[in-house]
Amino acid sequence: MTEQCVVLAHHGVRVMIGVGLIGAGRMGQVFAHHLAVGIPDARFVAIADTNPENLREVSARFGIAHTYNNSDELLARDDVDAVLIVTPTNTHAALVQDAARAGKHFFCEKPLALSLQECDAAIEATERAGVTLQVGFMRHFDPAYVAAKEKIDADMIGEPVMYKSIGRNPRRTSLEFAAREKSGGMIADMGIHDFDAARWLMRSEVTRVYSQGACLVYPELREVNDIDNALVSLNFANGALGNVDLSRNAVYGYDIRAEVLGSRGSLRIGSLQHTPLLVLTTNGVTHDTIPYFMERFGVAYAAELRDFIACIFEQRPPRVSGHDARAATAIAIAATRSFDEERVVELSEIAELRE
Amino acid sequence: MTEQCVVLAHHGVRVMIGVGLIGAGRMGQVFAHHLAVGIPDARFVAIADTNPENLREVSARFGIAHTYNNSDELLARDDVDAVLIVTPTNTHAALVQDAARAGKHFFCEKPLALSLQECDAAIEATERAGVTLQVGFMRHFDPAYVAAKEKIDADMIGEPVMYKSIGRNPRRTSLEFAAREKSGGMIADMGIHDFDAARWLMRSEVTRVYSQGACLVYPELREVNDIDNALVSLNFANGALGNVDLSRNAVYGYDIRAEVLGSRGSLRIGSLQHTPLLVLTTNGVTHDTIPYFMERFGVAYAAELRDFIACIFEQRPPRVSGHDARAATAIAIAATRSFDEERVVELSEIAELRE
Amino acid sequence: MTEQCVVLAHHGVRVMIGVGLIGAGRMGQVFAHHLAVGIPDARFVAIADTNPENLREVSARFGIAHTYNNSDELLARDDVDAVLIVTPTNTHAALVQDAARAGKHFFCEKPLALSLQECDAAIEATERAGVTLQVGFMRHFDPAYVAAKEKIDADMIGEPVMYKSIGRNPRRTSLEFAAREKSGGMIADMGIHDFDAARWLMRSEVTRVYSQGACLVYPELREVNDIDNALVSLNFANGALGNVDLSRNAVYGYDIRAEVLGSRGSLRIGSLQHTPLLVLTTNGVTHDTIPYFMERFGVAYAAELRDFIACIFEQRPPRVSGHDARAATAIAIAATRSFDEERVVELSEIAELRE
Amino acid sequence: MTEQCVVLAHHGVRVMIGVGLIGAGRMGQVFAHHLAVGIPDARFVAIADTNPENLREVSARFGIAHTYNNSDELLARDDVDAVLIVTPTNTHAALVQDAARAGKHFFCEKPLALSLQECDAAIEATERAGVTLQVGFMRHFDPAYVAAKEKIDADMIGEPVMYKSIGRNPRRTSLEFAAREKSGGMIADMGIHDFDAARWLMRSEVTRVYSQGACLVYPELREVNDIDNALVSLNFANGALGNVDLSRNAVYGYDIRAEVLGSRGSLRIGSLQHTPLLVLTTNGVTHDTIPYFMERFGVAYAAELRDFIACIFEQRPPRVSGHDARAATAIAIAATRSFDEERVVELSEIAELRE
Repeated sequence: MTEQCVVLAHHGVRVMIGVGLIGAGRMGQVFAHHLAVGIPDARFVAIADTNPENLREVSARFGIAHTYNNSDELLARDDVDAVLIVTPTNTHAALVQDAARAGKHFFCEKPLALSLQECDAAIEATERAGVTLQVGFMRHFDPAYVAAKEKIDADMIGEPVMYKSIGRNPRRTSLEFAAREKSGGMIADMGIHDFDAARWLMRSEVTRVYSQGACLVYPELREVNDIDNALVSLNFANGALGNVDLSRNAVYGYDIRAEVLGSRGSLRIGSLQHTPLLVLTTNGVTHDTIPYFMERFGVAYAAELRDFIACIFEQRPPRVSGHDARAATAIAIAATRSFDEERVVELSEIAELRE
Repeated sequence: MTEQCVVLAHHGVRVMIGVGLIGAGRMGQVFAHHLAVGIPDARFVAIADTNPENLREVSARFGIAHTYNNSDELLARDDVDAVLIVTPTNTHAALVQDAARAGKHFFCEKPLALSLQECDAAIEATERAGVTLQVGFMRHFDPAYVAAKEKIDADMIGEPVMYKSIGRNPRRTSLEFAAREKSGGMIADMGIHDFDAARWLMRSEVTRVYSQGACLVYPELREVNDIDNALVSLNFANGALGNVDLSRNAVYGYDIRAEVLGSRGSLRIGSLQHTPLLVLTTNGVTHDTIPYFMERFGVAYAAELRDFIACIFEQRPPRVSGHDARAATAIAIAATRSFDEERVVELSEIAELRE
Repeated sequence: MTEQCVVLAHHGVRVMIGVGLIGAGRMGQVFAHHLAVGIPDARFVAIADTNPENLREVSARFGIAHTYNNSDELLARDDVDAVLIVTPTNTHAALVQDAARAGKHFFCEKPLALSLQECDAAIEATERAGVTLQVGFMRHFDPAYVAAKEKIDADMIGEPVMYKSIGRNPRRTSLEFAAREKSGGMIADMGIHDFDAARWLMRSEVTRVYSQGACLVYPELREVNDIDNALVSLNFANGALGNVDLSRNAVYGYDIRAEVLGSRGSLRIGSLQHTPLLVLTTNGVTHDTIPYFMERFGVAYAAELRDFIACIFEQRPPRVSGHDARAATAIAIAATRSFDEERVVELSEIAELRE
Repeated sequence: MTEQCVVLAHHGVRVMIGVGLIGAGRMGQVFAHHLAVGIPDARFVAIADTNPENLREVSARFGIAHTYNNSDELLARDDVDAVLIVTPTNTHAALVQDAARAGKHFFCEKPLALSLQECDAAIEATERAGVTLQVGFMRHFDPAYVAAKEKIDADMIGEPVMYKSIGRNPRRTSLEFAAREKSGGMIADMGIHDFDAARWLMRSEVTRVYSQGACLVYPELREVNDIDNALVSLNFANGALGNVDLSRNAVYGYDIRAEVLGSRGSLRIGSLQHTPLLVLTTNGVTHDTIPYFMERFGVAYAAELRDFIACIFEQRPPRVSGHDARAATAIAIAATRSFDEERVVELSEIAELRE
């Protein structure tokens, strides 16, 4: 998006942000859908994916003419103002540099990176290029999390003293994806949302972590050195306490909850009920549960994209910055190390790693 | 309870109200239990029942020495200050006269009577004898109903404009009891609690009713001329509307609900969950339901007895008077007639019956 | 949609249904949104509205080039295969005839008409022209209602014996709209959804109704001869009972519920909670409510449009036909008459009106 | 209770267990109430308390003639078969020895003791004397916990892999009681119920703990070296994980929850709603919360006493033994040490302490 466009926008002439999608897999298709149907100010221009099948399917489904089997050609287009990076995590570092160098704003699906060095490099490249970088922590756009944050900021529960977060998937991920070098391992991969929300809701940095984990339900995960259940304890700089419970075997549904206990009240986020229907029989009262993440966070995915486009238009910083990604990544690294080494880990140890 | 006792009570000497139980069947045993264990100011003195087995069982269980196969002997005891009449409805009229004549305060399980004439006779006998008469509409002592009434009186929902009440049993009553001449029929027998609560919560008299009913699940009820489902529509003197839904086939549990919609809010009474436990499996989320009336209203039965004793001590009128019983009975009679004659019935028609 | 298109569609060539929107007011904009962003097989071609402001706003917002201040020009377009009629009810009759004569499939927002004559005329015109007519009873596309219907059809609750429906708006409608000749009056306008769902869920026709109504909260509604609260009792052909409670003063939120009690269980549809967040303070536990119909039925509006387009493609009958609209209208007319004449009304009376 | 009594009991002659209450403070009065009114097979014989006011009040309220300002005289009575020890924790050790020596069965309110040595001494004394010792972990008698345990044992959720327990009080305890030497400190005093339930529900011993704690809301607790919030992480012998969250500032109510996640489902115990009433206004939907422990566990306190008496009659072991108390105490000691020393603590360290 050039200066000229912004000026035009301010004069009431309708300009559209041209958007390119890099990565058209499962999550890429979610964003493609929202781009295609939900964000009036964005024009969905082009798609890049190394997998020709993904490329064919997504371009056909949403009627996108320009498709590429590599990101360079997409980034070379003048009518692409912004890109969505929705590729495997280990490709983020290079793509981020390419996008920044090409002067494109970019939204990067979480995690931005698995190492602090890569986070720092992404932040530096973004700042150098003067482009907007937003990271895909969509909970910042979920109505329940947003309402909770507003109530905390309005002092409705007094000073937050305890944070509890539950992140449970209804089934394990693929063995291929679970591998530590690809996903960062369960604690990092699943927990990063909870670590990010911890800083955001508690308004304080995490200073110390202690993790426990085990492979208790899917023994095959041991082959790729992964686990299926974990508990991470947190200490915050302001003295508050917290913990995060992660599981891959919530066979009953997608169970995402958070709780912030304050000195004068408490907030509980989360619901298991998907369809507002109760069935009453001699077996009791039954309702369904939320199947998976799209049913729970579909609205938030659309909202974060909308806000990304709006941030570019309005030249304001995104709600979830590279610095936020870096801080959550640091907690994830510390929590993973705590599990590996069976000991309490100070966040200051991780920060020092960087040097 | 003599004047002397009250005087003593005021001087700090502990006096106990001697209580006799007339009727030791299912509901009689509920009251026997509360008398035996829950009401410190009452002394459980004697039991009368025509069924020797009931008599033997209840006296043994609660250690009551004085048992009678007729009420006269019990009423003749000087140490009986008050009696609980928990016999079949068609015996209430005579017992009420006997109790009043003997100068005993009395609590009468609902319904006080099936006809307005009998209600009037009970009220007159009570007034003549200067004794306390309380009727067993225990919802006036249920914490949820009481809290709702207080909120209505505190103007928390503005002017009540609609009343909805649901009364559903998990199974049909016995054919013997269902007979119209014994129970008054389903609309009267089950609905009388809802009609009573209608007047109490809406603070207005019912002026018109329209009933529908059918025998849809238990065809054998037709043999005794009863039904298993009914809907009764109500108009109140102040213009408000209401209805009552009754069913004998809530196989999932004992389902008692009420709702008062006001001009500035609404109140909903009722819960189906008995045990605070959720079971989450691939079948969804399940909890149990409230099995039957003791699990739902056990606390209210104890509270109404306690208040009955307290009313005698404190010489104040009971929360549920003979007049309340008469008014609820009038609605029950009108609603039953509406069903029988398939037409809207004005309460004024019923009142005239009395003459 | 010509025969040729269907043939092409079957051969895998992508064809789109060209859709025109007639009426771009509040509800028209809801459908415009879904057309613009949510229904891939439909192409949003043109808009007609007598209000130039509506026309300008909607065409600009969704980038629709062809706009008309009358429906005739829109109906004359060859690239319009189907139209959505979302105009005031009193204009439906003429538009329906025009659309059918032009050979356009049409979706008509509820109510199809306020009289049975007009319903019949619409059905006849549709059949003559061989076009698809779908009526906007969107509850047939709401996940909770659909799941309930499936469970009833799967015999999960046995034979349905009682139907209860609650339809409450958070505030009154405009006085202009409330006028009987425009809206049909509160019982018809609000209740028609509940009457329609009654037939659908109970799988039996309504044979008799009795209505009560009053103007209790908004006295200004009396000026236009409307009311703000109503209760309608229903009898079904199969013996089942039912009622519908309607209110314009559910100031706490949009409260839509339904309950089907069967011989072996019960189903309850509805929820008041919008955001999955509980606030716990010394005032107790609080959550928000559903603000209004878009938050409750937004998904259903999109689904009914999608299914309308699919029905045209697949040449199958719509889920909600003109006959369904006629039957619900008959109940609405009977219920309104019952209120006007303060008596029980047989549906057979209404059917005879037609001759 | 002598052998003779048991024989008599088996021959149908009614015998009563004579019960003495040692300690008539807040919890003592709870048990006095249940003894007086709820347990037919027990005869409430005598009370001992060093506080003459407690003694006077409780004896008057329940009509108990025999009162003592020391426990020795009460233990000397032949008609006292069993005693309830409901005194401050630091007096338990001596009373337990006295009771066992006197051949009395005894129920000891939790915690049995603050040290493993005292637990061991109590167990040994009990075994030597051949009397029944039951400890007051009343959750074993709460219907929700019992139902959860039954479902776990029936394999309804597969193998338990994660345990989560929340124990929150609506306000802080008195500074006098909070003192470490009196209460054992917050983690031990409040957490012991959660540690006990951990072993019971998870069917595995705790092997390792890690605690965090802070004084965040009531700074005055620092004066007595106590805290107001704590989190304890648990590892179980079978590999499962768990944690316990404790707080003194749940100002909204008494919040007791537990969750057992298994390989095929999950169980959630707990409810915050006390009265089944919803208030719906423009502020949303509100209900009350459970005020404090008597409202939540009143039924369980009665049930544990009843079962204690039944165990004596039936000569069967109690549901909660001295060994259970010892095991929970070991976790409490380890968890407190973990907090004090800011490190992970192995349970084996604690066991070794004993030698």
